[in-house]
Amino acid sequence: MPVKPQRFLDDLHQLRRFGAAGPGKGVARRAFSAADIEARLWLIDRFRSAGLRAQFDPAGNVWGLSPKRGLLLGSHTDSQPEGGWLDGALGVMAGLEIARGRDDVSVVSFQDEEGRFGALTGSDIWSGALSLEEADQLSDASGITFAKARLEVPQDLVQAAPEARIFEGYLELHIEQGPVLDAAGLGVGVVTAIVGARQKTVTLTGAQNHAGTTPMPLRKDAVRGFSHAVKALEAALAVEAGPATVWTIGQVDVHPNAASIVPGKVTFTLQWRDPDEARLARLEQAAGQALMRVAEDHGLRLATDAGWALRPTPMDDGLRSLLVQAAETKAPGQWRSLPSGALHDASNVARLLPVAMLFAPSIGGISHDFAEDTAEDDLIIALKVLDRAVASRN
Amino acid sequence: MPVKPQRFLDDLHQLRRFGAAGPGKGVARRAFSAADIEARLWLIDRFRSAGLRAQFDPAGNVWGLSPKRGLLLGSHTDSQPEGGWLDGALGVMAGLEIARGRDDVSVVSFQDEEGRFGALTGSDIWSGALSLEEADQLSDASGITFAKARLEVPQDLVQAAPEARIFEGYLELHIEQGPVLDAAGLGVGVVTAIVGARQKTVTLTGAQNHAGTTPMPLRKDAVRGFSHAVKALEAALAVEAGPATVWTIGQVDVHPNAASIVPGKVTFTLQWRDPDEARLARLEQAAGQALMRVAEDHGLRLATDAGWALRPTPMDDGLRSLLVQAAETKAPGQWRSLPSGALHDASNVARLLPVAMLFAPSIGGISHDFAEDTAEDDLIIALKVLDRAVASRN
Repeated sequence: MPVKPQRFLDDLHQLRRFGAAGPGKGVARRAFSAADIEARLWLIDRFRSAGLRAQFDPAGNVWGLSPKRGLLLGSHTDSQPEGGWLDGALGVMAGLEIARGRDDVSVVSFQDEEGRFGALTGSDIWSGALSLEEADQLSDASGITFAKARLEVPQDLVQAAPEARIFEGYLELHIEQGPVLDAAGLGVGVVTAIVGARQKTVTLTGAQNHAGTTPMPLRKDAVRGFSHAVKALEAALAVEAGPATVWTIGQVDVHPNAASIVPGKVTFTLQWRDPDEARLARLEQAAGQALMRVAEDHGLRLATDAGWALRPTPMDDGLRSLLVQAAETKAPGQWRSLPSGALHDASNVARLLPVAMLFAPSIGGISHDFAEDTAEDDLIIALKVLDRAVASRN
Repeated sequence: MPVKPQRFLDDLHQLRRFGAAGPGKGVARRAFSAADIEARLWLIDRFRSAGLRAQFDPAGNVWGLSPKRGLLLGSHTDSQPEGGWLDGALGVMAGLEIARGRDDVSVVSFQDEEGRFGALTGSDIWSGALSLEEADQLSDASGITFAKARLEVPQDLVQAAPEARIFEGYLELHIEQGPVLDAAGLGVGVVTAIVGARQKTVTLTGAQNHAGTTPMPLRKDAVRGFSHAVKALEAALAVEAGPATVWTIGQVDVHPNAASIVPGKVTFTLQWRDPDEARLARLEQAAGQALMRVAEDHGLRLATDAGWALRPTPMDDGLRSLLVQAAETKAPGQWRSLPSGALHDASNVARLLPVAMLFAPSIGGISHDFAEDTAEDDLIIALKVLDRAVASRN
């Protein structure tokens, strides 16, 4: 049975009424908020109408399970505190529309992808990366624990989470959250890999001094050292960077941060992402050497923490090929392959199942903002590509 | 009558018992604190014993007035929250010791030089830069007003401030608060001028974006722009800098300052100091041009506030010559001329009287710290040079 684009769009617009906020199509639907729970109850009703067996699991994920074994489609329906109508919702509503016409497609809305309690909390738990007991200890910015928050779910609707082996793979449609497709005027993107990321916190320590009485040659100014470090990193990372490499110094803290004091210390985060694990390691080595040189040249003490690292998630070749063929059929000349620079629930699901992802364009690359949007024509193209990929497996 | 070095040192050690704090010879004697008021009452007693007419004025300054018209000597006896035993105290105790042997030397301890309520509050008021009514509105970090704080002074000891015309000039001995004399192994410094200073707050605005999904060529990263700006300022200011020029980027605020967000905005202070007003202006022009070039090159928006400017305070030629001759007599080969990079009460007094200043070395350049110190031999040299300069006027 073919998908019905208007019904799919109607569902998306109905969903955005739960937590509608801000200007335009903005949404405020934090995980386990009243709006989020109402939206998930509405979703369970929709799943049931589509012939799916609907339930919460203990983590707050909502499942619509098909009669027959097959693919799992989905994403998440919680939002950022100031979010858009499509981030997550698009993948869940597309899954629902496709499941309506088939008896082998299940749908999931993972909980707290947007990280009220961390990041990707619901799929973390389902994939086994985090136990429910560990998650229960997490708390949000106002001190409410995950254990307490998940009691907001009507307990008669909660069942044990389905086992991964009842699914054959996972497909996630999501907005790009970046400017690449929009800037290129394309309607759809097939994800090659979810990039890996590494982050270090770096401290450069010089000497804090009076800004009036300390002659320039006697200074060890940490802010000037930091500026030279950024320039050295630009040069060193450019040598190792691939076409998809990004790196960011997003957080910078200066001590004591007073206009009349020569700064004694600068602490900053260095984060870099790439789809290739080997390149992530080469970038790390290049950055470390550049920082050591600058610290030595400026007489500064260098300290770097252990930081964290997330490995890249490659997409499953078989599922990705289905998306490529479907895109070529339904959107010829209107699509491209690209890596995902953001994390997604698919990163977690990849621990258990073959996964692949499809992107719809984000107008102006805007994301995590009330102003996030995508042209409805592009939403329909994405739905059709996804549907075609699912159908072509048979 | 010659000065008595041991009596002068004993006075300094007695004074540091008021508010003694921290390790070593540290002092915590904020303006109008119990320790500060006790110290000022002790000072009034000392002034009276030296034959001076002693009083508070409404601003909290303590005066010891000589029978005959002549020079005013002094500095301040309030301290930083974590201060040293000599910052300010040295100039007041040296003034007292010299006044003991003469009938034409008055002594002052200005109040709140260290800026509990602003900066140089007591001499601001005496010099007319700030009215008492305006000062009364100022409040400290905990919300206590100057009006309330100055009620800590026993009101029977308060009289109208003396008029400037009863003095012929002002000499202030102070610790250098910088490393120049100590690094050169010298015992005393004659100040050429108190430097002027200018400060601007600069904002560079780019585009805030997702650190994972925004390709490098599409970024307008304010932190990277800032780093290029610092390098450009280094080059541009070096062209105009004189031997005494210093400049500092002491405060840097990054927005939104999160590791996974490409920073959209950096706000920073640029402060520069020099004894030459014309050079201060040339430095300002050079900095402005460098910033405009960087903003243009990086596609950033540049905003610069009006900031503030303090003109340099030249020392009076006549008084400075007396100090030079006295230094040459009492410390031959052991002194040099140098500008003062820090502000002093003399900056204010210069509105009313000819002023000159003498510096004693700061060990390691340490200042505004419990660890501030000067060798007692150097304190005695400074006392003798100052005494000689005063005596040689006759």
